[in-house]
Amino acid sequence: MKLKNIKLTIIGFGEIGRGFARVLLEKKRFIEREYEVDLKVVAVCEIGGSIIDEDGIDLEKALKLAENKELRKHENWTSMKALDVIKKVKSDTVLELTPSDIKSGQPGLKHIKESLMKGMHVVTSNKAPLALKFSELQKIANSNKVKLEYEATVGGALPIINLRKHALQINKIESIHGILNGTSNYVLTKMAEEGVTMDVALKEAQEIGIAEADPGYDIKGIDTGAKVAILANSLMDMNVSFNDIEITGIKDITPEAIELAKKHNCVIKLIGDVNRLEVSPRLIPINHPLNVSGAMNAIMINADIAKNITIVGHGAGGIETASSLLSDILDIIS
Amino acid sequence: MKLKNIKLTIIGFGEIGRGFARVLLEKKRFIEREYEVDLKVVAVCEIGGSIIDEDGIDLEKALKLAENKELRKHENWTSMKALDVIKKVKSDTVLELTPSDIKSGQPGLKHIKESLMKGMHVVTSNKAPLALKFSELQKIANSNKVKLEYEATVGGALPIINLRKHALQINKIESIHGILNGTSNYVLTKMAEEGVTMDVALKEAQEIGIAEADPGYDIKGIDTGAKVAILANSLMDMNVSFNDIEITGIKDITPEAIELAKKHNCVIKLIGDVNRLEVSPRLIPINHPLNVSGAMNAIMINADIAKNITIVGHGAGGIETASSLLSDILDIIS
Repeated sequence: MKLKNIKLTIIGFGEIGRGFARVLLEKKRFIEREYEVDLKVVAVCEIGGSIIDEDGIDLEKALKLAENKELRKHENWTSMKALDVIKKVKSDTVLELTPSDIKSGQPGLKHIKESLMKGMHVVTSNKAPLALKFSELQKIANSNKVKLEYEATVGGALPIINLRKHALQINKIESIHGILNGTSNYVLTKMAEEGVTMDVALKEAQEIGIAEADPGYDIKGIDTGAKVAILANSLMDMNVSFNDIEITGIKDITPEAIELAKKHNCVIKLIGDVNRLEVSPRLIPINHPLNVSGAMNAIMINADIAKNITIVGHGAGGIETASSLLSDILDIIS
Repeated sequence: MKLKNIKLTIIGFGEIGRGFARVLLEKKRFIEREYEVDLKVVAVCEIGGSIIDEDGIDLEKALKLAENKELRKHENWTSMKALDVIKKVKSDTVLELTPSDIKSGQPGLKHIKESLMKGMHVVTSNKAPLALKFSELQKIANSNKVKLEYEATVGGALPIINLRKHALQINKIESIHGILNGTSNYVLTKMAEEGVTMDVALKEAQEIGIAEADPGYDIKGIDTGAKVAILANSLMDMNVSFNDIEITGIKDITPEAIELAKKHNCVIKLIGDVNRLEVSPRLIPINHPLNVSGAMNAIMINADIAKNITIVGHGAGGIETASSLLSDILDIIS
């Protein structure tokens, strides 16, 4: 069997990038067999430089070095930055997996633009560029006849963009709302179940690796707001940006408020409401489908033909998110 | 814009067939615009005869006649049975939407086989043929280079087959279990919420049109068992038939048992468990994602990469199920 070569560039080799590399290694044979393609990573870009090998990088080795923070010891390490790699190394699909800066969308925004303009498909988990410039980026993709796929930007492993594209394609989506941030949901669940303060819950979330050292984007509702903007554009044909979303985070939620909610058979959840372009803490009845616990995400769609559909899953995690990234890549090549 | 003509044959013009026709009428312009195809229904087959018009049947008229049980008054009505229509009327895709007979799989089984052997794709909501002869039918489809699609057989509008195919394609599905029958779930929910007996709950379900006049397949767990067999074959590569499923229905569940469950913060749900090839009433904690109420279906998947995903939606209804049927048709033609 002759395999088709597909070249990938990975920008960002943190939790998401490394999770992707691990899953790619694990599923290499499966992808070869089922799709008759060899997915070859020709570049891995990090802050300060890149590994480049047009014959395909040994990912196992790159992963080992990255875990010891020694990526620059790789024999193919160069000081070339991601933007130059995009310009100089030809690949079929660029994976943009850097963290989001919600003010500027950078550096992801320039990486995505440049990749599309160079005629390469882009698959991304990076929320900010899409939350800020959705329609502009789609236009650049269209005019360069390449695809921009972003399942991983909303809900991690939870399929929502592809669900709409391949299962609900006949439907008009009439409303979407849900729990779109695992960290804040974990914190609210802990507070409700154990009666602890937000600081205690947050510290625990950091200890077990659910919350970042700086969980501001999660707790302030910014991460949820970015996802609301992406869903509004992609699933409801609204032409809006992150700055149009009205956001109230959970930082002022007290144990007393949670206790009071409980007395009314409710929990407090941070809800992203796409129709209202709003993020806010809301009371949710205990037996409501959106009352999911821990770091889970839950999205409730109302569609004109299929009616109500709720989907619940892991909203984060390097391995889990790779499921969405690979789904996008395989969708592009098949 | 030149539209591509796609000819459809509809076999079975009950709730599902008529729901499909209604949605097709409603979405005609959308499908023309987005997919550049004209979906033309060239035959509608019912018990006793068929309407045939190779230029495309006026569905509005057919629907009106069908509602007055006057389908045979249509000017294109002939006494030709479905099997002869399949043999004589060339179409691109046959929709097999007749009710299931779980013992023989007929008449659906012969309709599906004949259609595939004539080189026509098949899209079906009919559980029995697939629950009994999954691998045989897939082999016939493959050897005739046509597709057999069946999203509508499991969970009505709830996307599960296409979710696996287009969003979880990289994943190995490790377990599936869930609530796969809306009628029995409605009855159990009523009994729990109102303390009524099964007979009272069932009568109400019949009055509001959720339960059939003969709800035996639902209450005895047969419908759930057929879906378990289909999921086992399609999502977990097991080669099993309906007859391999161990089935216990809900007919012996008493209000006392439900009351006792409630005391332990649980509900009783009819669960189809694909790994164990088993259908049985089980205790489910009140805050468990499978505790969905009314006629909803809920399916919980565990996958090796994406981990836990739960999807909740309408498991029945003519309109809702059309979402799945059209999703399959559009997947075939695009």
